[in-house]
Amino acid sequence: MPERPGGRTARVRASVLRAAGDLLVESGFARLDLGDLARRAEVGKTTVYRRWGSVTAVVTDMLLEMAVESVPRADTGSLLGDLRANARLVVRTLTDRRQGPLFKAMLAAATSDVDTAEALKRFYATRIAEWAPCVTDAAARGEVPADTDAEEVIRAVSAPLYYRLVTGTGELDDAVADRAAEAAVAAAKAGVFRRGEHALD
Amino acid sequence: MPERPGGRTARVRASVLRAAGDLLVESGFARLDLGDLARRAEVGKTTVYRRWGSVTAVVTDMLLEMAVESVPRADTGSLLGDLRANARLVVRTLTDRRQGPLFKAMLAAATSDVDTAEALKRFYATRIAEWAPCVTDAAARGEVPADTDAEEVIRAVSAPLYYRLVTGTGELDDAVADRAAEAAVAAAKAGVFRRGEHALD
Repeated sequence: MPERPGGRTARVRASVLRAAGDLLVESGFARLDLGDLARRAEVGKTTVYRRWGSVTAVVTDMLLEMAVESVPRADTGSLLGDLRANARLVVRTLTDRRQGPLFKAMLAAATSDVDTAEALKRFYATRIAEWAPCVTDAAARGEVPADTDAEEVIRAVSAPLYYRLVTGTGELDDAVADRAAEAAVAAAKAGVFRRGEHALD
Repeated sequence: MPERPGGRTARVRASVLRAAGDLLVESGFARLDLGDLARRAEVGKTTVYRRWGSVTAVVTDMLLEMAVESVPRADTGSLLGDLRANARLVVRTLTDRRQGPLFKAMLAAATSDVDTAEALKRFYATRIAEWAPCVTDAAARGEVPADTDAEEVIRAVSAPLYYRLVTGTGELDDAVADRAAEAAVAAAKAGVFRRGEHALD
């Protein structure tokens, strides 16, 4: 029985993205090469060149896939509960044996490659938009001011976790995740993340 | 009049570190080479090889120099005032035409080079220790709980600024700096950064 093209195309993509992840984790972005990638994925070199054409296009595609695969937002009934779930998910991703080095490699690549930077930016925009409703729901429940910038609160949860990742200062564990969520909630309740100018003293 | 050896050594170091900064900003860490560096600094290649021996040693030395050169802590009389000064200083550094690309290059290099990662960690430890007294002074004035983890508060101020730098999400300006300081103060006042376990609900 002949295979449907969609089935084969999807399998080729899965193989190539898996191989790209392996190679990135093993040797970093600078040494990633489409020829090695085709060999590792056991896919024809021509197919890889025709479909992606550049290392950056492969990394962009990995980020697209990761954005689609991401875990849906939590809905625990409280902002602190939801943001704790978000923070723990981020810690789990950044400390994962495979995804941790992958994120480090992509963040490093983004500092010198505008296309990777753009792909990474879109990836975070997708993730943040997915979790922002936790904050708008909390605002509707009266937990935080109505004009709270939901996306800024979600970014505030991730920030200390990424800071630790890139500067190498401090552990990344559930206690740190919980503290990141608590800090974001305390600041949101105090009105720090309200849209527009609201000087606090 | 013959020069004192200390004077010459200091000048050679200044030339080499300045040239290394130029080259890092222009073409990134991966392409930094001791030979090019010696040429650019107009210093003998043998001197550079003997004194530093590796690109990593040069970058480590740049970080040491930057740690020494850093601006002393603010002392405005309020935690929010001090942390705003800290956040604005970080934003000024990260958006500086020269220092911004330098930090990006060093953060990228640290993801794959343990020596650079170690040097960067020591750099942040120095900076954080320098500003931590702003928090212990605030605790003494009763602005935040006495058992507040001062270094964690200083890290919390930098975190959203570095998060924006590495993920490319959002601007880096004084308004963002002020918000980072306000968020850290609100969380500290709420007891989020107290040492040990203090569950908040």
